[in-house]
Amino acid sequence: MFIEKSNVIKTHIIKLEKDSDLLDSLTLYAEENNIQAAEINFIGAVQSAKVLYFNQEKKKYDEHIMDQPYEVLSGIGNISLLDDKPFVHVHIVLADSTGKAYGGHLDKGTKVWLIEAFIHEVDSKNLVRKFDENICLSVWS
Amino acid sequence: MFIEKSNVIKTHIIKLEKDSDLLDSLTLYAEENNIQAAEINFIGAVQSAKVLYFNQEKKKYDEHIMDQPYEVLSGIGNISLLDDKPFVHVHIVLADSTGKAYGGHLDKGTKVWLIEAFIHEVDSKNLVRKFDENICLSVWS
Amino acid sequence: MFIEKSNVIKTHIIKLEKDSDLLDSLTLYAEENNIQAAEINFIGAVQSAKVLYFNQEKKKYDEHIMDQPYEVLSGIGNISLLDDKPFVHVHIVLADSTGKAYGGHLDKGTKVWLIEAFIHEVDSKNLVRKFDENICLSVWS
Repeated sequence: MFIEKSNVIKTHIIKLEKDSDLLDSLTLYAEENNIQAAEINFIGAVQSAKVLYFNQEKKKYDEHIMDQPYEVLSGIGNISLLDDKPFVHVHIVLADSTGKAYGGHLDKGTKVWLIEAFIHEVDSKNLVRKFDENICLSVWS
Repeated sequence: MFIEKSNVIKTHIIKLEKDSDLLDSLTLYAEENNIQAAEINFIGAVQSAKVLYFNQEKKKYDEHIMDQPYEVLSGIGNISLLDDKPFVHVHIVLADSTGKAYGGHLDKGTKVWLIEAFIHEVDSKNLVRKFDENICLSVWS
Repeated sequence: MFIEKSNVIKTHIIKLEKDSDLLDSLTLYAEENNIQAAEINFIGAVQSAKVLYFNQEKKKYDEHIMDQPYEVLSGIGNISLLDDKPFVHVHIVLADSTGKAYGGHLDKGTKVWLIEAFIHEVDSKNLVRKFDENICLSVWS
């Protein structure tokens, strides 16, 4: 089990702008603020979404392009380092106009209507991702 | 992009009582404790729910009245100021008796069975909502 | 209303290993690290899941055994004391291969593929569960 004990050093509260790309905006913010380790939580709404499902048997991601507006019921995840750069790993839950919920691993291609995010930056230097052949994902090690 | 860098100054842990209104209880707690900026996370169960979906085309909220008991799988959101008073903005995910998930923007009319909430109060004085004509919602600016 | 004002004293960041039991692993970590009060947030993937729905009329949990792989879109909850031991109370949201969302109260029997968790330990000594006959659950009091 990977274990890292840390302390929150700053809580960044940000609002993402309409028409921006959700994942790209979070990644850019992390890069510009040199955030190496953090927890992310957000809510809001998107004009369209692209999410991934990890197929554990085939060991590759399946894509879901969801081309309509959704409420973002939750965005939960983290920032850590991959190849020496901040990497944003977030899963989102969406609701359609009938209230039914969907979701997956947030991918590029999710267009913001409004997002309100809290990023709790921690003082860890050890949150670094490396490829794990056992599960075919880049994980903390 | 709205950016506010803050620090968590207190973590309020509260349990809401059976039969209380979920949104009203959170708002009252924020008012009584003068919480001007915070992140909220909770889980629990409700006897019934009322959630909203923002119709981005018509720029108004649609209502969903959900008149049966649900598990509350997540409540994620924040407290900030609107018209000089604490305003609670939360999205919830619910599960029905078959395990299917639903959700939306939490509205008055959601009746608590049990809610366990963490409210991380931050020291920001700038988390203030104003109406944005572009998206027809009151947002941080 | 139960109210406890606390401060986060440490943020534990952990990765759970493939094939471990999700709830047991969190409980064991809390026991080994003597965590008496905390908030938990996680995302990841599981090979199968077991979740509960609290039937408010019959005042007992119904079980859902979900025997396929899922993305874990969110795991939200807390650690507090029950019978003098750390007790993990978490609700999870899952997505199947089509992107549809499900969930409930996390039970033993949920098999990890990968879980990335943030555990925010707080300095409270009063987060203690006792059985409440009114709602037939053990709650903070």
